[in-house]
Amino acid sequence: MTETASILAVGSELLGTTRLDTNSLFLTGELEAIGVRVVRKACVVDGWDELLAELRFALERAPLLVVTGGLGPTEDDRTKEAVAHLLGRRLLRDEEILATLKERFRKRGFEMPAVNAKQADVIEGAFVLSNRRGTAPGYVVEDGGRTIVLLPGVPHEMKALIVEAVLPRLTGGAPREGLHRRVLKVVGLGESMVEQLVKPVYEAHREHDVTILSAAPGEVQLHFAARGGCAEAGRTLDVLEAAFRAALGGAFFGRDEETLEGVVGRLLREAGQTLALAESCTGGMIAARLTDVAGSSDVFPGGVVAYANEAKVALLGVSPESIARWGAVSEQVAREMAAGARRRFGASAGLAVTGVAGPSGGTPEKPVGTVHLALDAEAGIRHERLTLAGDRAMIRRWTTSAALGLVRAWLTEGGGAK
Amino acid sequence: MTETASILAVGSELLGTTRLDTNSLFLTGELEAIGVRVVRKACVVDGWDELLAELRFALERAPLLVVTGGLGPTEDDRTKEAVAHLLGRRLLRDEEILATLKERFRKRGFEMPAVNAKQADVIEGAFVLSNRRGTAPGYVVEDGGRTIVLLPGVPHEMKALIVEAVLPRLTGGAPREGLHRRVLKVVGLGESMVEQLVKPVYEAHREHDVTILSAAPGEVQLHFAARGGCAEAGRTLDVLEAAFRAALGGAFFGRDEETLEGVVGRLLREAGQTLALAESCTGGMIAARLTDVAGSSDVFPGGVVAYANEAKVALLGVSPESIARWGAVSEQVAREMAAGARRRFGASAGLAVTGVAGPSGGTPEKPVGTVHLALDAEAGIRHERLTLAGDRAMIRRWTTSAALGLVRAWLTEGGGAK
Repeated sequence: MTETASILAVGSELLGTTRLDTNSLFLTGELEAIGVRVVRKACVVDGWDELLAELRFALERAPLLVVTGGLGPTEDDRTKEAVAHLLGRRLLRDEEILATLKERFRKRGFEMPAVNAKQADVIEGAFVLSNRRGTAPGYVVEDGGRTIVLLPGVPHEMKALIVEAVLPRLTGGAPREGLHRRVLKVVGLGESMVEQLVKPVYEAHREHDVTILSAAPGEVQLHFAARGGCAEAGRTLDVLEAAFRAALGGAFFGRDEETLEGVVGRLLREAGQTLALAESCTGGMIAARLTDVAGSSDVFPGGVVAYANEAKVALLGVSPESIARWGAVSEQVAREMAAGARRRFGASAGLAVTGVAGPSGGTPEKPVGTVHLALDAEAGIRHERLTLAGDRAMIRRWTTSAALGLVRAWLTEGGGAK
Repeated sequence: MTETASILAVGSELLGTTRLDTNSLFLTGELEAIGVRVVRKACVVDGWDELLAELRFALERAPLLVVTGGLGPTEDDRTKEAVAHLLGRRLLRDEEILATLKERFRKRGFEMPAVNAKQADVIEGAFVLSNRRGTAPGYVVEDGGRTIVLLPGVPHEMKALIVEAVLPRLTGGAPREGLHRRVLKVVGLGESMVEQLVKPVYEAHREHDVTILSAAPGEVQLHFAARGGCAEAGRTLDVLEAAFRAALGGAFFGRDEETLEGVVGRLLREAGQTLALAESCTGGMIAARLTDVAGSSDVFPGGVVAYANEAKVALLGVSPESIARWGAVSEQVAREMAAGARRRFGASAGLAVTGVAGPSGGTPEKPVGTVHLALDAEAGIRHERLTLAGDRAMIRRWTTSAALGLVRAWLTEGGGAK
């Protein structure tokens, strides 16, 4: 089997200013998992000469080529024709595919349009991947040691065909050694800080292709991979994960598909706690993230977005004297907001955020990026002051993550125990 | 000058599972504006053979090639060497660039690392694009009717060099005919509905390359373009815009860079009105969008995220009888929430949202996707019932846009006049 591959996405819409070929990210991950490395990828307009040249060049560069798009019924869809032409093969009408297509339309109450008939044409000798989700089947064509996989460009159709049909075909169903990835997620630290913490670990494991990347303001991801069979690679990843987590300490919050709001929701539920919010500079972003998780109503009664000082007083019971004396962006006001939210919503804990998100509103004592977080619970109050860099959007997003991180720390350190 | 171009992004990190070459979208738009069409683009790992093959092929396909990445100081950065090798030219150390580089480091309090010296190597005969924002200059190399532009991969450096140096160089400073784009934005209608409305217009103007795309749940964009000089194309676009807007009616809310939350904020400010929120199923998403706009505190005193029924009663003054009789997801409760928000925050208007976002909580009478919007203002109350399809995230995002659309409609129809 091949060890390198190339990806080609066909379609003029991919050469404009609005759309990227996101299919290639998924394809790359699936190919890596069976030990195939993607060395190049390209997008091309749907012209005949362009398509032929691109296919020919891609096959010179790597023995496996995955092509997405250009399998539809319109005149512009010529991927199959081009591959057949390049390999000197014929296109043969497949009566079985044609019948399935007609049936598909009939079930929806339509007659199959005549143009769709070409979707039943098969490159001579190709293996057909039947597509339950759409009208265009996929194909695997083998030719002199090279393999060309043709897939529809519609993401969910492409993904299903890759997983259900292409990978089993490429591996012959046998387990294969490949690259398996894991992602660890960290809250409240910058990229360089994370790098410093984990450097001793990744310097001892350079072969594992460790990448640190800033996923969003306030959230950093550590990507690493291990080569081998699925079980063996899993064990290697477990060892690496343990070493990284020891280095990261309390900043680690989850792995792979886990989200910070999902983890906070789960921890609240496990601890039998509820959380109310009082947001100023984040303006509802913390609430929006918490309620993004289905079932969040069990742990989140609600929150107040108290943008105006009057709202802090009227809805959260913050004392006007505190605002006058310490300013709306202060530890004292954050504490009163948190206590007020907890009380007003009858929650186990109240989380408050007040800060200067900018671009205006900064002063020498409280420059843009000054943020106070407070968490009020039965066991007492926690407070954090942040001094953040960046623009308004960055500051708001960082604050949102840091606030959720504060709740997570409280819950994991036993503060949430009833 | 050339009429077609090809884009190549160099860097192994672009062949993984996390990063796409987003630079190409910007590059494509800028090239289109000077009449150049991008016919293919590719990403390649930073191996020497791969890079050479890719450069050679790209230049066969189009006479203009824009390469991003691989201009840094590390061993993997070999774009310049590969281009020089391909064209049979030498790399010459440029003492002026070297001095600038050293000075750049000195200003930051560092000695220039020895590896950075190679960033002062210039392909013989190349035009140097000095880069004030980073250490890697860009280059324009002309060779037998072909033009190769080399740019750093860092987006803000690449963008600045394209606008300030590359385009003037390619056009010789003369105004050129090109493709100019405009985007019209629509709220509250689906893609197919927008298509039906504008079909008569775009069928009469097929040459203008009209695309309808779903930008986010509840928001559709209409992209179109005109060819010509800047002023002439602008006039054509104005005519098209007027025709599309007439067809779209009140669903149109802004163009190009305008956002719905930005438009609503501006309209509120112009009308001297303030808006308070009462959110249930959107859980803070409307507040988060409104406060995304700098200066929103002038028009947005705050809101309540009333997820629990008790919070609707305690914080918004909704009557427990209404909840018992009509259910939390009902026109009556939406109206009371809107009135409560308006009153509690002392705002000119109150906007409320209550609905079933799913995945659970649906009933035969109120299936998942049932949403009530209410806007309470001096002139009276507006109510809308939505029946939305899709998953939780889709329903929440669609509702958020529809709610902002309701405020916009109120303000543009004169309801916001004091």
